[in-house]
Amino acid sequence: MKEKVKREAGSVIIGRNPVTEALKSGHEMEKLVIAKGSEKSLGKIIAMAKDRGVPVYYQDRQRLDAAAEGGAHQGVAAWVSEYTYSGIEEILQRAEEKGEDPLVVLLDGIEDPHNLGAIIRSADGAGAHGVIIPKRRAAGITQTAAKASAGAVEYMPVARVSNLVQVIGELKEKGFWIAAADMEETPYYRKDLKGRLGLVIGGEGKGVSKLVKEHCDFVVSLPMKGRVTSLNASCAAAVLLYEIRRQRDEAGLQQGL
Amino acid sequence: MKEKVKREAGSVIIGRNPVTEALKSGHEMEKLVIAKGSEKSLGKIIAMAKDRGVPVYYQDRQRLDAAAEGGAHQGVAAWVSEYTYSGIEEILQRAEEKGEDPLVVLLDGIEDPHNLGAIIRSADGAGAHGVIIPKRRAAGITQTAAKASAGAVEYMPVARVSNLVQVIGELKEKGFWIAAADMEETPYYRKDLKGRLGLVIGGEGKGVSKLVKEHCDFVVSLPMKGRVTSLNASCAAAVLLYEIRRQRDEAGLQQGL
Repeated sequence: MKEKVKREAGSVIIGRNPVTEALKSGHEMEKLVIAKGSEKSLGKIIAMAKDRGVPVYYQDRQRLDAAAEGGAHQGVAAWVSEYTYSGIEEILQRAEEKGEDPLVVLLDGIEDPHNLGAIIRSADGAGAHGVIIPKRRAAGITQTAAKASAGAVEYMPVARVSNLVQVIGELKEKGFWIAAADMEETPYYRKDLKGRLGLVIGGEGKGVSKLVKEHCDFVVSLPMKGRVTSLNASCAAAVLLYEIRRQRDEAGLQQGL
Repeated sequence: MKEKVKREAGSVIIGRNPVTEALKSGHEMEKLVIAKGSEKSLGKIIAMAKDRGVPVYYQDRQRLDAAAEGGAHQGVAAWVSEYTYSGIEEILQRAEEKGEDPLVVLLDGIEDPHNLGAIIRSADGAGAHGVIIPKRRAAGITQTAAKASAGAVEYMPVARVSNLVQVIGELKEKGFWIAAADMEETPYYRKDLKGRLGLVIGGEGKGVSKLVKEHCDFVVSLPMKGRVTSLNASCAAAVLLYEIRRQRDEAGLQQGL
């Protein structure tokens, strides 16, 4: 049960244009550091970073000097990580190769890299075939996420897409049912969760967005017996993924008998 | 789905003797700050803090001066939080008042306050009656844990005990079955999880300790279909708690028919 992943520190990009380009390209970014006093002139970069969910820190200029190792950082440095995202085709192929009904997790705005990592870890444990995350306003596969996944990012394909609603449409055309984790009366375990399935988990605090929910086929709902109205996103994902696993294993066993 | 808890910052204790006393008393401690350069002379306090799972930070003396507001901090300050733990009797009484078979979660060395908070939140969601944590080498109810619980610490009784094995013995005498989350072939959903139940969740990376496991009645095991060998502790707890909930609700429904 040891944590296996140990990633090298990513490389550092310095200077206004290189950092802007990196942000535009969608390169995975651990964090952005801004020299104190440069906040105003770097407002556009800061806004782009925030829009992409990249944490922004303000530090003394000397710290940036050190990180830049003498290079001209112009008040800004970005730490980028090396991670290769998969395509959706790769995820579907993985299910096909295993001769299994594909199970795909779609994350609608998970912002905490710990939650993202924990969900990828649970997806691996429950035998899902891939995870799909949006490019904007969501955590990407940073070192923190990789560590929280306990190595699962090395095995579980993660695709990053511009438009989650469009991907849901494509999956439905391929015969998928799309389930949104949300509130309703019928508990999740009364739903048939076998077959080709996409499970949508909403972001922390906000849940599945209205637009995405409208494109889902049905809702899977965790009964809340106490006073809180939802679970932590990664805990909710784990419960639902393992119920899907349970139903599939039970069905397989019945067929085998 | 909003996060509800907003706790006041705890108070600050300064000076060697007061901090030592606070550590001895088991007062819940958010963090300990040591002035850089005082590491050696404060070795004993640092060791006590680490033993109790309190995070230790090393900062410039000026920072401590500011926190101490002119007081004589002698190189050390501790941030303590205000939280009142429950007794085990209180937890059992809660189940009795509801006319339910008690369901208690025992945490064997959860060190991450985010995990602790998420587990308390899931325990509330699944309708457990209380959570029991050890005093040593484990996270307590700090502000971080309270925040991660999304307010559940206000409703879910948490008891803190010196000896988990002894408590397991006491629960068994009261007719409890004690289940340890661990690895074995039979999947968790094939176990009968109704009745008076204590669910033991092990610490991150280490799992349930050998001694504790020896005192449990049986194992509940999550099938791991991928490459990682375990889930995040709070995710595993959520899956197991909701399976217990499912079995109880299903049984209740059958009785009702």
